[in-house]
Amino acid sequence: MSGGATRTTALAVGPAGAERAGRSLAREVPVALSFDGTTHAVMLASPGDLEDFALGFSLSEGIVTAPGQIERIEWVDHPEGIELRIWLAVGLGARLLERRRAMAGPVGCGLCGIDSLKEATRPLPTLPPGGVRLAEGDIARAITALALAQPLHAETRAMHAAGFWTPGEGLVFAREDVGRHNALDKLLGALARAGRDASGGAIVMTSRVSIELVQKAVLARAPILIAVSAPTDRAAAAAEAAGLTLIARARGAGFDIHTHPDRIALTEVPHDA
Amino acid sequence: MSGGATRTTALAVGPAGAERAGRSLAREVPVALSFDGTTHAVMLASPGDLEDFALGFSLSEGIVTAPGQIERIEWVDHPEGIELRIWLAVGLGARLLERRRAMAGPVGCGLCGIDSLKEATRPLPTLPPGGVRLAEGDIARAITALALAQPLHAETRAMHAAGFWTPGEGLVFAREDVGRHNALDKLLGALARAGRDASGGAIVMTSRVSIELVQKAVLARAPILIAVSAPTDRAAAAAEAAGLTLIARARGAGFDIHTHPDRIALTEVPHDA
Repeated sequence: MSGGATRTTALAVGPAGAERAGRSLAREVPVALSFDGTTHAVMLASPGDLEDFALGFSLSEGIVTAPGQIERIEWVDHPEGIELRIWLAVGLGARLLERRRAMAGPVGCGLCGIDSLKEATRPLPTLPPGGVRLAEGDIARAITALALAQPLHAETRAMHAAGFWTPGEGLVFAREDVGRHNALDKLLGALARAGRDASGGAIVMTSRVSIELVQKAVLARAPILIAVSAPTDRAAAAAEAAGLTLIARARGAGFDIHTHPDRIALTEVPHDA
Repeated sequence: MSGGATRTTALAVGPAGAERAGRSLAREVPVALSFDGTTHAVMLASPGDLEDFALGFSLSEGIVTAPGQIERIEWVDHPEGIELRIWLAVGLGARLLERRRAMAGPVGCGLCGIDSLKEATRPLPTLPPGGVRLAEGDIARAITALALAQPLHAETRAMHAAGFWTPGEGLVFAREDVGRHNALDKLLGALARAGRDASGGAIVMTSRVSIELVQKAVLARAPILIAVSAPTDRAAAAAEAAGLTLIARARGAGFDIHTHPDRIALTEVPHDA
């Protein structure tokens, strides 16, 4: 049993009858992220790699743009969950406060509908062309490497994972979480803490691809996003607009390239059917 | 092509080479839910059954306790997404406003960490024992019926579904969404709009089980929750405490009963191994 799983039993029912069997369940903990003393969000997350999560979330949300802008992260255990108190470097807190004041509507949290929709669909930067180029076989290699770096999923069957893979190094980091957005934030935090940016490799995910994963990948400057399952239409459109190579349904030797195929060296020239 | 999918092409790469192939992608749209003119949340959702979603979300969030407390729902299309304007019956809006004021911290959205964690882990009611009893074979029947009621998933491979199944009627409703929480809110809204409560049947989900799905099921008074994949530890603990029968990893003829097995009639008495 690891720290990310809780051991329990279930009544396992099958054609041969029912019996009590051991099961490892993924841990899921409310995690409150506060900045300079005020809570920004409460997320349900797996309790591993939370320092990476705090940094990756701060970067993905645009609260900081570099690890050095966080002065320190305090971990506080409560009966109800975990509080991560993030203290920003002098000057940044005031900026955050201004931003919150500008966002707050007349009764506290509410924006009007149209402002809220605009906030949810903020424009993304455009990635420069190139950056990294993968061989066709690298896609399966990256997916296979990630599958082998999921100890908690192997134990619980209930976790997602995000990895960073480069042609020269293979899988550099992998992070697991019950939520795929959290897994990616943890990965991006781990990269930033190691002083690396994502521009020289590919992000690999075990999940489907929603718009938010594309947003996080682009903000982290990753040129390629590879996922085991399918994207939404909005995710594919955002990837196209931002210059991200989006690869989905990567299983076995096959995969779909949805956008910007120029970063993948195909062994055969495509024949358009 | 249905309204829930966008037709596009991808470069499909496989052992036999690469060719352009048609793909249906799940639509994902920002949906802002406002109550009496103030936005409560912006969710990324599939654009079908949004009236069910508005009602189910309002019930799950505890903003209303019955469909009659919503006076009307306006659907407003914006370039950035869809706004659902929910107008509450007279008197309820004032209550919501009070609640928001009580929640709002000194700088707008923020609660202190400990208050935020308490809010995220609010206690659930306890379900009465019994209510409905399923035969062992009903679990596979419910899962199979739900699998056949997912036209968008069949097309896009990127959707979750939530269904309501009773021993007498089979699958009564099924709703699809790119998000599993949204799919369940849509289902609960559909049930409420039909004037039904969930106490006489089981909720069936295609997904893993996080704490939030258990919370929604219990608040809707459903005595049984059946899921294709595994639960988290917190989901199983909440189901145990609330008196919910939680069935997971329901695939083929096998399944795990995590909590309150008394609502399932097993063909063989369990022998504790």
